[in-house]
Amino acid sequence: MTIKPIKRTCVAGAGAIGSLFACHLGSVADSTVLVRRQEHADRLNQHGLRSSGKTERHSRIVASTDPADLGDVDLIIIATKASDVEDTARRLAGHFRDAVVMTVQNGLGCEEVVAKYGDWPIVSAVTFMSGNRHSDIHVEYELDTATWMGPWAKGAATFEQVRQIEQLIEHSGLKARAFPDLLPAQWSKLIFNAAVNSISAVTDLPHVKAFACREALTDLGHLVFAMMDEGKRVAAAQGIVLFEDPWEMNVEATSHGQTGNDDYAHAPSMLEDVRAKRLTEVDWITGSIVRAAAAVGVPVPISETMYRLVKAREASWKLNQH
Amino acid sequence: MTIKPIKRTCVAGAGAIGSLFACHLGSVADSTVLVRRQEHADRLNQHGLRSSGKTERHSRIVASTDPADLGDVDLIIIATKASDVEDTARRLAGHFRDAVVMTVQNGLGCEEVVAKYGDWPIVSAVTFMSGNRHSDIHVEYELDTATWMGPWAKGAATFEQVRQIEQLIEHSGLKARAFPDLLPAQWSKLIFNAAVNSISAVTDLPHVKAFACREALTDLGHLVFAMMDEGKRVAAAQGIVLFEDPWEMNVEATSHGQTGNDDYAHAPSMLEDVRAKRLTEVDWITGSIVRAAAAVGVPVPISETMYRLVKAREASWKLNQH
Repeated sequence: MTIKPIKRTCVAGAGAIGSLFACHLGSVADSTVLVRRQEHADRLNQHGLRSSGKTERHSRIVASTDPADLGDVDLIIIATKASDVEDTARRLAGHFRDAVVMTVQNGLGCEEVVAKYGDWPIVSAVTFMSGNRHSDIHVEYELDTATWMGPWAKGAATFEQVRQIEQLIEHSGLKARAFPDLLPAQWSKLIFNAAVNSISAVTDLPHVKAFACREALTDLGHLVFAMMDEGKRVAAAQGIVLFEDPWEMNVEATSHGQTGNDDYAHAPSMLEDVRAKRLTEVDWITGSIVRAAAAVGVPVPISETMYRLVKAREASWKLNQH
Repeated sequence: MTIKPIKRTCVAGAGAIGSLFACHLGSVADSTVLVRRQEHADRLNQHGLRSSGKTERHSRIVASTDPADLGDVDLIIIATKASDVEDTARRLAGHFRDAVVMTVQNGLGCEEVVAKYGDWPIVSAVTFMSGNRHSDIHVEYELDTATWMGPWAKGAATFEQVRQIEQLIEHSGLKARAFPDLLPAQWSKLIFNAAVNSISAVTDLPHVKAFACREALTDLGHLVFAMMDEGKRVAAAQGIVLFEDPWEMNVEATSHGQTGNDDYAHAPSMLEDVRAKRLTEVDWITGSIVRAAAAVGVPVPISETMYRLVKAREASWKLNQH
C-alpha cells in the first residue's frame, strides 16, 4: 500500500503548541491554520508566523476561521485545549475527508470526540515540547522535547501513516517519535500529569522539588507518590505496561538540572489556568484516571479527592464574584 | 470541698473570641486582659471594651502586656490562636498560681502545651460562638451559640470547677455548657473542623451547600463525607462515642436557615488565614486526627492528603514571593 504524500497541513488552534507546529510545518509543506478570531487569521495571513528560541523560522501561513477557505489538506493537527476539541471537530465535520487527524491534547478521550464528527484515520499524540506564545505571529520554542505518536487504538490509522507524520515533523525541525502502541507512553504521561497538575493547581505551587520530597509526614512527595501509585494500579489492571515510571519522571523534572533552583520550576498548565481563573483540563486528565479506575474496579480515593478539589476550585470563581 | 469564688478573670489574647469573653465577664467579675501590643493595652485601659450585635455591653478592662501588672486572678481563659498558645503559656509561667486555666482553641493538644508551664488545673473548652472584631475596643457578637467545657482528661480540674465557670459565663450573657467528659463533643467538632476547614482552605470556597452535595461523582460532599468518615473511625478506635455526628453538623450548617443562600455561607478560619497568607491551625486540627490515627493504627489517606495540601499551600507563599 502506497501512502499519499503530505503536501498540505492544517493546524486547528494556534496556541503555543499549535503555533509551533504550524510555523515549523511551513518549512516542509503548505501550512494552514484554523483559528477562532478573524483578527488572528488576518494577522497570520499578513505576517506569517515566526519562531525564536530553540529554532529560528519564519513561515508563510494560510489562515481562516472557516475550514472551507483552507483548500484540501492531508494532515490535520488538532492542537486546541481538550475542552475545545468537540467544538473544533464540529467545525471540521464534512471537510478534509481524505486527511489524517492527529490529536495532541493533555489527558485521554479526545480521539473519541473527534471520531463522532468524521471518518478520518486518527493518530494519538502526546507532546513534551513547550513554547511561549509572545503574540499571534511569534512563538518562542522553549523545551525542545519530542511529540510521541501512535495509531489510535480504536481507529483506522496505520503505523505507516504515523511514521510518515513522524518523518515530516522531524524534517520540519521539531522532535517526534512514532510508537506502534502509544498507550504505554500515554498512560505514563497521564499519571504524571494527573498528579503534578492537580496538586499544583490547588496548592499554588509550581513543580518544585517538594513534589519529590518524602521525609517528614507532611511532605508533599508522599501525596504525589500515593496518587501516582493509584494511577499505576489502574494502568496495570488494564494490562498496560508503562513506558516510563511517572515517579521517576517527577524526580527528574524537579531536579532542575544543575541549578537545583526552584525559581526555575515549571508552572503546569492547570496551575496557569487556575491563576487565570480559566476552566482547567481536569476532566480529561485526573478525570480520565478516575473513570478508568471505576471501569476496572480499582479504588482511587486520592485521585477522586484531587479531582473534586480542582472542580470545587473552579466553582469558587463563580461564587466569589459577588 | 468549698470552691473559691471567681472574682477576677484574665483573658489572654483579645481577638474576636477573647474580646467577647473579656467584655462579658466584665459585667460579673473584674476583667483583665493580657495582650501583645502596648497600644492595644492602652486603648483598653482608656476606653474599656464594648459589644454590639446579640448583646450590648460596655465593660471596664485592666489590660497589660505583662501579667505582673494584672494582680491575682482566679480564672485564666487562653483565647489566642493555637499557634500562639505556647508563647502565651510561657509568659504566664510563674504567675496566677491559684487560678484555673481554660483553653478554647480549635483542634486538640493545647492543654498539654499549657501544662508544661504551670500546675494550674486545666479546663478544656471548644466554642461555637463567633464575633466580628471591629477594633481593639469594639467586638460584634454574631453567632450566640455556646462554649462547651469539661475537665481536661489529663489534668486536675474538677467538674465542680467547670460548673462554676459555666455559671459565671452564663451570668455574663454568653452561653456555656459543662460536660463531665468533653472528649465526645471535642471530637465531634474536631472531625467537623478538620474536613470543613482544610477543604475550604484549598478550594477557596466558604462553607457552601456544595459541601453537603453527594450526587455527581465530582460533588464535593463525597469528599467531605469520606474525610469525616476517617475521623469517625479514629474516634471509635479510641473508644470515643461522638456527641454529635459531624456529617449532620455539616448538613445543618450548610442549609443556611430559611434563605438557603450561599452568599451567607461562613468563611472558616483556615480559609481566612489562607486568604490573608497567615499560617493556619492545620497542625492542631487536621494534624491532630492524622497523629491520633497513627497512634491507633487507622488508615486516613484522605486526611493525610488534605493535611499535606494545606501545608503545601502555606509553603507556596514563601516561594511565590519573588
